[in-house]
Amino acid sequence: MAEKKLVEAITSMEEDFAQWYTDVVKKAELIDYTSVKGCMVIKPAGYAIWELIQKQLDDRFKETGVENVYLPMFIPESLLQKEKDHVEGFAPEVAWVTHGGLQPLQERLCVRPTSETLFCDFYKNDIQSYRDLPKVYNQWCSVVRWEKETRPFLRSREFLWQEGHTAHATAQDAEARTIQMLNVYAKFLEEVLAIPVVKGQKTEKEKFAGAVATYTIEALMHDGKALQSGTSHNFGSGFAEAFGIQFTDKDNTLKYVHQTSWGMTTRLIGAIIMVHGDNSGLVLPPKVAPTQLMIVPIMQKKEGVLDKAYELRDTLKKSFRVKVDDTDKTPGWKFAEAEMRGYPLRLEIGPKDIEAGKCVLCRRDNGEKIEVALDEVEAKVGELLETIQKEMLERARAHREEHTYEATTMEEFENLFNTKSGFVKAMWCEDQACEDLIKEKLSVTSRCMPFEQQNLSDKCVCCGKPAKKMVYWGKAY
Amino acid sequence: MAEKKLVEAITSMEEDFAQWYTDVVKKAELIDYTSVKGCMVIKPAGYAIWELIQKQLDDRFKETGVENVYLPMFIPESLLQKEKDHVEGFAPEVAWVTHGGLQPLQERLCVRPTSETLFCDFYKNDIQSYRDLPKVYNQWCSVVRWEKETRPFLRSREFLWQEGHTAHATAQDAEARTIQMLNVYAKFLEEVLAIPVVKGQKTEKEKFAGAVATYTIEALMHDGKALQSGTSHNFGSGFAEAFGIQFTDKDNTLKYVHQTSWGMTTRLIGAIIMVHGDNSGLVLPPKVAPTQLMIVPIMQKKEGVLDKAYELRDTLKKSFRVKVDDTDKTPGWKFAEAEMRGYPLRLEIGPKDIEAGKCVLCRRDNGEKIEVALDEVEAKVGELLETIQKEMLERARAHREEHTYEATTMEEFENLFNTKSGFVKAMWCEDQACEDLIKEKLSVTSRCMPFEQQNLSDKCVCCGKPAKKMVYWGKAY
Repeated sequence: MAEKKLVEAITSMEEDFAQWYTDVVKKAELIDYTSVKGCMVIKPAGYAIWELIQKQLDDRFKETGVENVYLPMFIPESLLQKEKDHVEGFAPEVAWVTHGGLQPLQERLCVRPTSETLFCDFYKNDIQSYRDLPKVYNQWCSVVRWEKETRPFLRSREFLWQEGHTAHATAQDAEARTIQMLNVYAKFLEEVLAIPVVKGQKTEKEKFAGAVATYTIEALMHDGKALQSGTSHNFGSGFAEAFGIQFTDKDNTLKYVHQTSWGMTTRLIGAIIMVHGDNSGLVLPPKVAPTQLMIVPIMQKKEGVLDKAYELRDTLKKSFRVKVDDTDKTPGWKFAEAEMRGYPLRLEIGPKDIEAGKCVLCRRDNGEKIEVALDEVEAKVGELLETIQKEMLERARAHREEHTYEATTMEEFENLFNTKSGFVKAMWCEDQACEDLIKEKLSVTSRCMPFEQQNLSDKCVCCGKPAKKMVYWGKAY
Repeated sequence: MAEKKLVEAITSMEEDFAQWYTDVVKKAELIDYTSVKGCMVIKPAGYAIWELIQKQLDDRFKETGVENVYLPMFIPESLLQKEKDHVEGFAPEVAWVTHGGLQPLQERLCVRPTSETLFCDFYKNDIQSYRDLPKVYNQWCSVVRWEKETRPFLRSREFLWQEGHTAHATAQDAEARTIQMLNVYAKFLEEVLAIPVVKGQKTEKEKFAGAVATYTIEALMHDGKALQSGTSHNFGSGFAEAFGIQFTDKDNTLKYVHQTSWGMTTRLIGAIIMVHGDNSGLVLPPKVAPTQLMIVPIMQKKEGVLDKAYELRDTLKKSFRVKVDDTDKTPGWKFAEAEMRGYPLRLEIGPKDIEAGKCVLCRRDNGEKIEVALDEVEAKVGELLETIQKEMLERARAHREEHTYEATTMEEFENLFNTKSGFVKAMWCEDQACEDLIKEKLSVTSRCMPFEQQNLSDKCVCCGKPAKKMVYWGKAY
């Protein structure tokens, strides 16, 4: 019965998606709560996913010329206040350091909620000439935002992220880098996390504090809610003017630089859970699975079984991330645990299998069991991991297509949000009043104005006035 | 003359070692100062060294079974106060967060100066049975200590580090892990950073706040000062008792766990500079050099020169970290810059070389120039990088041997510190009064009681009473 307890303890996602999510993050041992309100411990199983994300994303950054740096975690209050929109956006949610050691500080320092102001302060001295441009810097660090309601990975007072900050000679270069990084993000989600995204621009209302334009990738979770998964901002020369970041151009005149910033966070782990997970627990895409294959020996006390399991591990670990579950738990318990933790493949091997020169591979994503000859295991595992990665993306894409709707009238629009869950595409007149009204009436927000526009009608779904922009609307995390 | 400016701007180390150090960190573009007092920006050239340290050290950790995690950066005041010695050691130098957003906090939070208390709070819930042990966790993060005097890499208010925290069933297991990690550190410094170290135990006076025993690796800098380069602490069950971390052992009784912690920091970059650097700038050991080979084309505007440089880069970059300096600076300037930045090898190639089918390799560590046929470059570069790595360690070891002295009387001891700079080995009676007196009179501290003991005499160098311990003494950073 032991094996059932582990699974029974999860709420089903149809019954209560939020509780299912909390159960999975706890039971799969991704996080633990702490004495520090609103902050979490990321446990080994969770942090190992982050390490795989970090490594693969960082490699992609470096291919585009990004260099990593590290800036201080503290921002003096006077520095935070230099760009007006920015301070208004962030001041209400920062943590303030007022004492260093036993002494009160002369000036309060906030713990960085994001580092635009610090990068500006740095670039002001670091950039003199057009020869110093572009600067394409990134840092991996943690940031703090004093949120009232928190949820593991999705919204916490401290979270891990990367923040890229660039400076360019021209507005065109800045815009090109903004879009380039958005594309890096979108490809990363699709190719590595097996999550399809909608790429687009945020409305004025939803853009980042201090940005000229904010671009976003929006993903659809299993419950039909939208998750903003990465953003890329073009600041124009606004920060440069506020901080005095000027360079001497080739024509010998002083000009302001144009800047961008872009970030993705540990929230991506939440996205993986909510896009791919099921009622047995986590389902990890092979490319970010810290253990891609768990070997479960059957009747492991019989002579030769554990030896064979270790032998297989030693062969397979040259190409894959493999472990043997040699604990004294029952096979049934081990299966349930392997499912809960989301290992893409499980390999079962017992005395009869060994005699017959075979074993059984079991796919976590669809439960399929495949009998394989022992001398073909290595090739088969490689092939299956690729197939799983591909089919997980296809399944997620199909789910999103099925849950993306269109509305041309307010009645349709309301009806869709009252009866379905997902994205609704609808035309918008670009007047913020309509956006506000929709949010007030339906508790949905504009997710983005997608790059791939369609002309669903020529009227705004809200006010009926002429409309040229199609917007993705949704309930958001 | 341009090329001379770069070099002339460095103070010579013989004239003023501290100023030389500051010049190198700035001119080699490792760091920049910021508006945040006591904190620094780690620039791309500096951060890339840290990334190489991190990767290689983390691999070595994982080979010993370490798992990475992430804990919050904030510690509630009540948690910090649970272990008495620990809070006394750290409270005077922490930064306090008193406000979150616009509200004052009910309880102050300190920004972690180290995370023993948070790990204890976490382990208290995470450990129930002997089956849960050992826990061998580590995190890579930044910590804050409100220092009054700061120096880049050596002492700053915020610095990057790793902190390992483990919990064990027995005192023996904890002690074994403490020593194991000290050995990992010592091997890492010797094999990767080319820095020889003295391994030993800290005296009671110098041990970590809350530890039963602190072990250290001590390195000697070029100016004869000692740098504590990594420490490993055995806490016994002191923290476990203060925090109530108990487990049910195999015999079904409740027992306290035994804990350790161990850390190394960005200070290691300071050690690299001060052990290997010279009056032309930085000298990087090949294993942590972000650029191992810089190709400098001569007469690069002549047809075919740049093409050949790129072709060489493309061949060599499969095995090494290689760049081409194709800027419009003069070759002389490029040479001086390559020296300042410490690239282990420089490759010079011009029209005549190409005609003759050869190029020149120049070693940064000793200035040697080697003519090599183009079709032998790859093998030669590999061989030279290995030689450089090895000889840098040998040179550093020879320097340390030359600057390690012995004293048996207080007169000899004083005389050595007044006329020489380096380590002085001397016997000590283990009475803290002598340690205090030596510090007061000579401004030197006990660096460690080395594992490799020698019996220099049977009397304490200070009081003349019977002494069994040999101690390394030195001036410290």
